[in-house]
Amino acid sequence: MPAGSALRFEIQAEDTNTQARCGVVHTAHGTFETPAFFPVATQATVKGILPELVRSVGTQGLLVNSYHLALRPGAEVVAAQGGLHRFMSWPHPLITDSGGFQVFSLGSLVRVSDDAVLFRSHLDGTLIEWSPEHAVRTQQQLGADIIMALDECPPANAPRDVIATAVRRTTAWARRSKHAHRRDDQAIFGIVQGGIYPDLRERSAREITELDFPGYAIGGLSVGESHDEMVQMLDVTAPLLPHERLRYLMGVGEPRDVLEAVARGVDLFDCVLPTRNGRNGQAWTWGGVVRIRNSEHRCSELPLDPTCDCTVCRRFSRAYLRHLFMAGEMLGPILLSLHNLRFFAVFMARIREAIRRGTFARFHQSMTASPLLSKA
Amino acid sequence: MPAGSALRFEIQAEDTNTQARCGVVHTAHGTFETPAFFPVATQATVKGILPELVRSVGTQGLLVNSYHLALRPGAEVVAAQGGLHRFMSWPHPLITDSGGFQVFSLGSLVRVSDDAVLFRSHLDGTLIEWSPEHAVRTQQQLGADIIMALDECPPANAPRDVIATAVRRTTAWARRSKHAHRRDDQAIFGIVQGGIYPDLRERSAREITELDFPGYAIGGLSVGESHDEMVQMLDVTAPLLPHERLRYLMGVGEPRDVLEAVARGVDLFDCVLPTRNGRNGQAWTWGGVVRIRNSEHRCSELPLDPTCDCTVCRRFSRAYLRHLFMAGEMLGPILLSLHNLRFFAVFMARIREAIRRGTFARFHQSMTASPLLSKA
Repeated sequence: MPAGSALRFEIQAEDTNTQARCGVVHTAHGTFETPAFFPVATQATVKGILPELVRSVGTQGLLVNSYHLALRPGAEVVAAQGGLHRFMSWPHPLITDSGGFQVFSLGSLVRVSDDAVLFRSHLDGTLIEWSPEHAVRTQQQLGADIIMALDECPPANAPRDVIATAVRRTTAWARRSKHAHRRDDQAIFGIVQGGIYPDLRERSAREITELDFPGYAIGGLSVGESHDEMVQMLDVTAPLLPHERLRYLMGVGEPRDVLEAVARGVDLFDCVLPTRNGRNGQAWTWGGVVRIRNSEHRCSELPLDPTCDCTVCRRFSRAYLRHLFMAGEMLGPILLSLHNLRFFAVFMARIREAIRRGTFARFHQSMTASPLLSKA
Repeated sequence: MPAGSALRFEIQAEDTNTQARCGVVHTAHGTFETPAFFPVATQATVKGILPELVRSVGTQGLLVNSYHLALRPGAEVVAAQGGLHRFMSWPHPLITDSGGFQVFSLGSLVRVSDDAVLFRSHLDGTLIEWSPEHAVRTQQQLGADIIMALDECPPANAPRDVIATAVRRTTAWARRSKHAHRRDDQAIFGIVQGGIYPDLRERSAREITELDFPGYAIGGLSVGESHDEMVQMLDVTAPLLPHERLRYLMGVGEPRDVLEAVARGVDLFDCVLPTRNGRNGQAWTWGGVVRIRNSEHRCSELPLDPTCDCTVCRRFSRAYLRHLFMAGEMLGPILLSLHNLRFFAVFMARIREAIRRGTFARFHQSMTASPLLSKA
């Protein structure tokens, strides 16, 4: 990694039929290959799974939520423990979000002003002011490799004037976030907002890229809009982001959304889907989604996916996995989460391989026709 | 293993100052060293922990509850999957209990007669008749290496006439259980009852050993009596069990109880303590019990036990473990359970080593004076 640069993104292959590209990202805690999918470790843990196991299924990096850790145990506690990597025993790439999304969705909002968001903690009602400077300070204490500027993220169905205000604030907050940032072993990314309004997306992309961040996130998607609306916004936004910088689509994880975004030049994703849906008894397989509670699996000796190489598919039958879910045993959610993590790791590896081989368009087409891409 | 014998117990060393002995047990699924502690996998899973991890911390074998599996998913489902070892991916020694204890403690009792126990399932109210023959049939379908004759297990404070009836029934049921047993790759053990009445313990031990089982359990302890009462009953019962046969103290796991029982010639234990207490935030360490929720651990960089070699102690601070518990994260209970399993495995290994070296009396004494043996 060049001196003074916390993140280096190297594009290694580009698809000729789409905007898809693959490459490698160098961070202070190792590298990851793109397009990459980062599972979510909300409270500094992938729910129920030891970090060695998370890594062993091919997980390249994780996203941790600043809001949750700032409230409990406190960013200063994590800092005193040597930072997030050491605290959670994950010496690999980490992203923290700015807390903005959770402040708006979990906190009890008191007031949003150009200055900051004032909200009450969902845990104990404490009044907290979350400013761009506070978001950056918190993320510096946590110490992830990629951190995010504070943005305002309204729901997809918010009126145009609300979205326009969010775009204006997001730009102002991005400027302040960048100004507040000090740690040169972290890269801070700007976030583009704009809801489902092409002109607001364009304005946001222009304003945010003018601030010259080492990477850019497309925010405000996967917040209630349709798949087609998401794809349209990617069509508008992605080409406006600098070609040589990392592009990160926040909160997106449905395989069909990932595939369309990769085709439009997105490099990085994070999502709770593999673990959240795993906990609810849903497994992704190359033959389509398996709902393990279904009675058809009661006596099934089959693994979740006969083509999968994960420890779950090599050792356990659907009958056993169903038993765990019916009996309310923790191991059920754990095993389905673990399998899903492996599935997503393999899915991304196949995407990268197809881009490198120049067969991404064909892969995209074959996936679009497969049961895999049905909505979870 | 000699032909026709499902279990071979080889005593390798005997302590000269106490009745403690150590040895090795050969089963159809490998060997284990005694004195041995088997954690409990109630519903065919050690709660929250992959079997490879359970094994990796030195766990020699597990106990599974027949009652739970008979009710859900059904013993026939497990049999159709190739039996319990394969179902739960544990190719090592397994014990199943007879279901008796759970029938009495969890089921809604309808009628106990000399013939059988009639009860309603705690899951759906189904009326179930649990006879000695049914208990054996169920355990044959499950396929554990050591299975148990059905016994009647009243609480410690039950009146003498209730205990006397239980002793009489337990003998009759042991005879019927042995008669019903067909699988020559399983060993069936008889169980001694008798509550806290020395004469009833003697009578039960005499009657059960006359039936000539390959191993004997001491039942009806750890059901509400005091530590001293338990020790007195071991003093009465253990010497009446044949020296060359395995002695199994069911449901006992407090380190101080284990130590006193070993000193009186007990070879095998099972208990939920390491996992249940781990889930509740309690860790055993050589410096005494750690209650991880205590605020003193909020910023502690120490591992649970600086002398422990487990993956939890090598990777995670008390501050992180406390955070997981305070945040209600599954990984907290999982990590404390895993550490406790390692603690119990090492505790038993040290007991065996002391017996082999002829230093058990000294080990016993040093433990009795240590913070470890304070009641959990």
